[in-house]
Amino acid sequence: MTHPALRLDDTVHQRVRLGILAVLHEAASADFSYIRDALDLTDGNLSRHIAVLEEAGLVKVEKDVSGKRTRTWVSATRQGRSALDAELRSLRELISRVDGKP
Amino acid sequence: MTHPALRLDDTVHQRVRLGILAVLHEAASADFSYIRDALDLTDGNLSRHIAVLEEAGLVKVEKDVSGKRTRTWVSATRQGRSALDAELRSLRELISRVDGKP
Repeated sequence: MTHPALRLDDTVHQRVRLGILAVLHEAASADFSYIRDALDLTDGNLSRHIAVLEEAGLVKVEKDVSGKRTRTWVSATRQGRSALDAELRSLRELISRVDGKP
Repeated sequence: MTHPALRLDDTVHQRVRLGILAVLHEAASADFSYIRDALDLTDGNLSRHIAVLEEAGLVKVEKDVSGKRTRTWVSATRQGRSALDAELRSLRELISRVDGKP
């Protein structure tokens, strides 16, 4: 019986990246600045974490050039949604385990 | 209404350290090798994370020299227990939010 903490994956578990995937779960596709403001991040910090998630195939990034403004849209891939599910499953297990022994 | 991910603290949220605090919640005081095996860590990795938790005042480390063996006992401080509680509270909120429950 392995400890649920063993099943947490740093790519998804890291605080900011977990926040990004949670926001994308609510919004399906979100504008870069929307995510930045929702999680109170700097542009640089958000970019860095989105790059890690993109590299791992968990999010997709698309640029939308309309007029003189470029917007960056981020959405979770199917793999990203499964990864969030797996993370939340392990967290629920960890919480139940802690709750089971007061 | 801030996102629950904003309330996660890296000191406690980091995968290995969350595991250590969860194990200490179950065991009150645990031998170094017990934690290492429960979380499938190397000695070096566990030492490093225990040092971070000790530095933050979340765990207490005591050496017990009996005969020719030295055992290292780790326990959560009161502050460590509160920090784990706060982390689990934020995680529960994050999970409910993803699940679509208020």
